Amino acid sequence: MAQNVYDDPAFFAEYGKLPRSVHGLDGAPEWPVLRSLLPPLTGLRVVDLGCGFGWFCRWAATQGAASVLGLDLSERMLERAVRETAHPAVTYRRADLDAVELAPGRFDLAYSSLTLHYLPDVERVLAGVRRALVPGGVLVASVEHPVYTAPSSPGFVPGPAGRPVWPLDRYLDTGPRTTDWLAPGVVKHHRSVEGYVSALLGAGFVLTVLREWGPTREQVAEHPEWAGERERPLFLLLSGVAATVAP
Amino acid sequence: MAQNVYDDPAFFAEYGKLPRSVHGLDGAPEWPVLRSLLPPLTGLRVVDLGCGFGWFCRWAATQGAASVLGLDLSERMLERAVRETAHPAVTYRRADLDAVELAPGRFDLAYSSLTLHYLPDVERVLAGVRRALVPGGVLVASVEHPVYTAPSSPGFVPGPAGRPVWPLDRYLDTGPRTTDWLAPGVVKHHRSVEGYVSALLGAGFVLTVLREWGPTREQVAEHPEWAGERERPLFLLLSGVAATVAP
Repeated sequence: MAQNVYDDPAFFAEYGKLPRSVHGLDGAPEWPVLRSLLPPLTGLRVVDLGCGFGWFCRWAATQGAASVLGLDLSERMLERAVRETAHPAVTYRRADLDAVELAPGRFDLAYSSLTLHYLPDVERVLAGVRRALVPGGVLVASVEHPVYTAPSSPGFVPGPAGRPVWPLDRYLDTGPRTTDWLAPGVVKHHRSVEGYVSALLGAGFVLTVLREWGPTREQVAEHPEWAGERERPLFLLLSGVAATVAP
Repeated sequence: MAQNVYDDPAFFAEYGKLPRSVHGLDGAPEWPVLRSLLPPLTGLRVVDLGCGFGWFCRWAATQGAASVLGLDLSERMLERAVRETAHPAVTYRRADLDAVELAPGRFDLAYSSLTLHYLPDVERVLAGVRRALVPGGVLVASVEHPVYTAPSSPGFVPGPAGRPVWPLDRYLDTGPRTTDWLAPGVVKHHRSVEGYVSALLGAGFVLTVLREWGPTREQVAEHPEWAGERERPLFLLLSGVAATVAP
């Protein structure tokens, strides 16, 4: 099972200060792109894998989703979700995504934002998501980009030409990575772009979109402190359609 | 049009010394994986985009391909191909892949090894390849991986932990890159993984395989000098099937 770092008090306190925790979807700079990958939500049955504070769940409900099931491992996050992002169409449930069994053909859209890189077995998770979707159902997911999760020392350093570079190493050596992000000892599971795409195809999805997100030049003009984020991709966004016949 | 660096005498002399130039397909460490992506060749009409010395063309013919058309911009390479890899089923033709017009529905398999990163407009090229294939036809291609083509200074440097790292920068700033590989001033066209995948999907292919190639641990044991090649992906291998209805 994945590490439950979000229930670590120190981590949770720091996470709660991030722009995306304070401002919700609008505090996440990749949200406009992720949103553009979504189908019209009216009448859809939606599952959110790693729903956190529930910003997406409530938004999906306000867009006309018939039902939204928000799953998360963190009790602290779900407590805040129930308090702050409740909606009659939304249900929050605690679940370990490594082990959860979703009912077959129960959903039209599966959404997952920055969660799958915490899970050790993405093949298993995506196969379960595929089964839980109707044929033609849609998956939209974001993860930390493999180039971001790979390095031994994930932080910019001065490069050979004096400009900052991202010190990439260990890319092909997939597996757990322990970093000190917001709190010491956070475990993420590094896999390659190949790893994510192969898991998606292997689960029986047709790949429809692959995006490597970094801020646009316009976003960098507004937030000069983001300039480095164009030197390497920060997030990987994937969308797929559940094939008509499961593999 | 792409730079014709292969007809530069200094470059050509150096290129001719590479293991893949001396030993053909077996001198290319990624060949076993690339080969595994190919359909059975018996009876297929094949086009090779950037055929070089023609090693693949002759091999495909010996595997039973009905016809093989090898296209390349370099006269020097085609001269050697005609001399060394001739076969009754193979035709070599000089062509600028940026401008070539292939007859619609003329081929069952399009193959391209380490060529597309020299071309400024991969969307246009792949759209042409899609039209030249029958519905259900297959594309198998390798390119230098975007992580490899991106950096200002593409060479390993000592990292923060003392181990060598790949100094990644400029990843999202796609466009030409001038490097000194075998000869000074070689121009490659950097695009992201997203760029290649989007071009393939946009041309009307269904993505079937995405591989990020580096040597296996077994290959590194045999060639310790390749160890660095596992720190970042070296080649991107893609396979797609031409959708039944063109987009």
